[in-house]
Amino acid sequence: MILQKKDILGIKDLPVEEITIILDTAESFVEVSSREIKKVPTLRGKTIINLFYEASTRTRTSFEIAGKRLSADTINISASTSSVVKGETLIDTAKNLEAMNPDVIVIRHSASGAPHMLARMVRQSVINAGDGANEHPTQALLDLMTIRSKKGTIAGLKVAIVGDIAHSRVARSNIYGLQKMGAQVTVAGPATMMPRDIEGLGVEVRTSLEEAVSGVDVIMMLRIQTERQQQNFFPSLREYAQHYCLSRRHLDLAGPDVLVMHPGPINRGVEIAPEIADGPSSVILEQVTNGVAVRMALLYLLTGGKQ
Amino acid sequence: MILQKKDILGIKDLPVEEITIILDTAESFVEVSSREIKKVPTLRGKTIINLFYEASTRTRTSFEIAGKRLSADTINISASTSSVVKGETLIDTAKNLEAMNPDVIVIRHSASGAPHMLARMVRQSVINAGDGANEHPTQALLDLMTIRSKKGTIAGLKVAIVGDIAHSRVARSNIYGLQKMGAQVTVAGPATMMPRDIEGLGVEVRTSLEEAVSGVDVIMMLRIQTERQQQNFFPSLREYAQHYCLSRRHLDLAGPDVLVMHPGPINRGVEIAPEIADGPSSVILEQVTNGVAVRMALLYLLTGGKQ
Amino acid sequence: MILQKKDILGIKDLPVEEITIILDTAESFVEVSSREIKKVPTLRGKTIINLFYEASTRTRTSFEIAGKRLSADTINISASTSSVVKGETLIDTAKNLEAMNPDVIVIRHSASGAPHMLARMVRQSVINAGDGANEHPTQALLDLMTIRSKKGTIAGLKVAIVGDIAHSRVARSNIYGLQKMGAQVTVAGPATMMPRDIEGLGVEVRTSLEEAVSGVDVIMMLRIQTERQQQNFFPSLREYAQHYCLSRRHLDLAGPDVLVMHPGPINRGVEIAPEIADGPSSVILEQVTNGVAVRMALLYLLTGGKQ
Repeated sequence: MILQKKDILGIKDLPVEEITIILDTAESFVEVSSREIKKVPTLRGKTIINLFYEASTRTRTSFEIAGKRLSADTINISASTSSVVKGETLIDTAKNLEAMNPDVIVIRHSASGAPHMLARMVRQSVINAGDGANEHPTQALLDLMTIRSKKGTIAGLKVAIVGDIAHSRVARSNIYGLQKMGAQVTVAGPATMMPRDIEGLGVEVRTSLEEAVSGVDVIMMLRIQTERQQQNFFPSLREYAQHYCLSRRHLDLAGPDVLVMHPGPINRGVEIAPEIADGPSSVILEQVTNGVAVRMALLYLLTGGKQ
Repeated sequence: MILQKKDILGIKDLPVEEITIILDTAESFVEVSSREIKKVPTLRGKTIINLFYEASTRTRTSFEIAGKRLSADTINISASTSSVVKGETLIDTAKNLEAMNPDVIVIRHSASGAPHMLARMVRQSVINAGDGANEHPTQALLDLMTIRSKKGTIAGLKVAIVGDIAHSRVARSNIYGLQKMGAQVTVAGPATMMPRDIEGLGVEVRTSLEEAVSGVDVIMMLRIQTERQQQNFFPSLREYAQHYCLSRRHLDLAGPDVLVMHPGPINRGVEIAPEIADGPSSVILEQVTNGVAVRMALLYLLTGGKQ
Repeated sequence: MILQKKDILGIKDLPVEEITIILDTAESFVEVSSREIKKVPTLRGKTIINLFYEASTRTRTSFEIAGKRLSADTINISASTSSVVKGETLIDTAKNLEAMNPDVIVIRHSASGAPHMLARMVRQSVINAGDGANEHPTQALLDLMTIRSKKGTIAGLKVAIVGDIAHSRVARSNIYGLQKMGAQVTVAGPATMMPRDIEGLGVEVRTSLEEAVSGVDVIMMLRIQTERQQQNFFPSLREYAQHYCLSRRHLDLAGPDVLVMHPGPINRGVEIAPEIADGPSSVILEQVTNGVAVRMALLYLLTGGKQ
């Protein structure tokens, strides 16, 4: 089976069958990263461009490692050291990169929809590595992969997503993905951090963390993105933590087999108590490991690979 | 045939025969970038250092892709994250890089003559990727390649170069290159943007864009380098555009087969109307594609390759 | 013979036998960098992460070249373009990188002890590329290698280390290393630049440069690290240079075969007269060349290679 799409721009438009192809392919790539020689020649002679308009360690590094373990040539472009300082538009940057014949362009941008515009402009495959508050599809795919590998299936699970729902592209992509795969999603967070259209997304909404996590199979904590907030949505971090920091007693409300997830970087003691982040319910580091495998799968499938 | 020079520092000192060797070699490399597997083992085990003291996307990326498609190891050093912050001189940086045994050092620097100083200091080959307002030889070579491949020959063509002639290393390198290859060059731009020694370069000078482009085969627009200007050379961008923005009517003055070129990044609506930049006369993206091929050719020839 | 340690964190804890294994291995790698094809397949499929929290050209470039010449995949992370701006702790960064399955993490950090913390947190090998004013073990190893290859042995040599002893990780690592290998160390510098515990290190202390260098076999000059000083430890650079700038007459006091060393970047005319830096006694550039070989040796040995 192969992917029908040229690009991976969001989970909203990704059919269940394609999600499944991606997760299955990703699972077969997990093994490569645990080998003595962590490299396969699959993408030799392919060029992957990582075009990052926002700072990132883990996502850029994850894509770069994914590309290199497939033997692709990887090129990093970060906005701070690029023609962006010369005022070039994204479209002109896109057309220029296209003219250099890469195979895949991975883009992170602070503007929602930037990857979609890029995908329309260039013949190459585009992967959205996060666009504004819109989507972060590779994060959702690695989250789905982590849940599926731990729980066997996603269908029928109850998942709570907690934090700044309104500003979180991770939340949006996961809501789409979890629902498509048959999970029931509850979101929780301060009222000021709930998007206005939240009911339209088909999720249950809670303001109390206790209520939200009771009886769930998976708790997905979001990062407080202090750098993306223009206003203050809560009085102080301490006040936020009092109400929404995940701790022991919340896990007891959820049940013994609950999975605790976080996309990182963690603000310890704000979103999640350190002993929970590092505890036996946490799959935070499996998420990171699976991230490399998911990105290998996408690079492989988008350049013509078959599952 | 092989290159006689250790370095590529400028077009001024490059003999016609060597320009021809480079263009012929570059043409043979165009095909590599359109293959399924865009990689040849030619420079395996060679080390290319990209030493950029000025921000750049396209030139640095073009060199990096060129190096990787030839299987070289490429190392990027940008001034902002380097020992430059510790106050090291270019000479000491050069001697240090030399001691690590690279094969080619590509340098961009805001000071005219910096690559020449580097070339005298190190035994390795040096390529000038732009030095102040002096030269940008790889840009001129890719421009010559683009003209030659579109027009069959450069000799006898009439070429107009338009914009900030005084501050443009692209203009200087192209004036040298076009004249060597037998073209007639006319330059146009505001009087404040004409270098004092312009007559000595053997070009015709116009202040009117209309006059400059009438009957020419190629129109080469320059970027308004706002970041490099210390003073204001024109009252406003709007005023500049009124007189020097290339539009439909200028193309009509030139003739049906005129080529429109621009080194990028483009300031749309300032130097060139969007419909012209994206129109059928424009070869702006062919320039970018040829840029990778020209740089592959230079890396190949400077490390001992034969045409 | 193999290394017993998982990590290379400092010279203080490195046994003489392991130093010898590293130097012997490094010598066998010098030849690789002088070949026509400067690459061996030894570390194919291994991932090396260069995690630099402080700006650096030579050390980062040296590690990157070392990794690439061994065919490893190298990933650069610099603090300015990373999650560090999102406030992630070093521990969380470490756990995340660990989860991506690299083989070696090279770290430079402004905090003393940061590499040691990292090494305790991750199962991978960690190499200290400089931590605060604590240690810079790869610099000391390349210095030892340079001395040994020039003098045949280190045991019994007299070595003067001159400059800002208190703030120099290079000085600390070299004091440990030189003493372990049997050299006698004298340090010299302004009283304000002497660490309080200097007597405990077993070195002789001089304030006069003339006294310190008389009769020595090796003079190791340190860089004045203006960017790391919070206060002023001397009235002016000119005043410093008057007393501590190495010049012809000092070499005459030392003897005809004295070696002059400097870790770079050099402040010419402050720590060392230009004619001495570039003169026949200087082995400053051999140090740089040996730096690549020492780092190749460490990457090779830490990933299971045998001497």
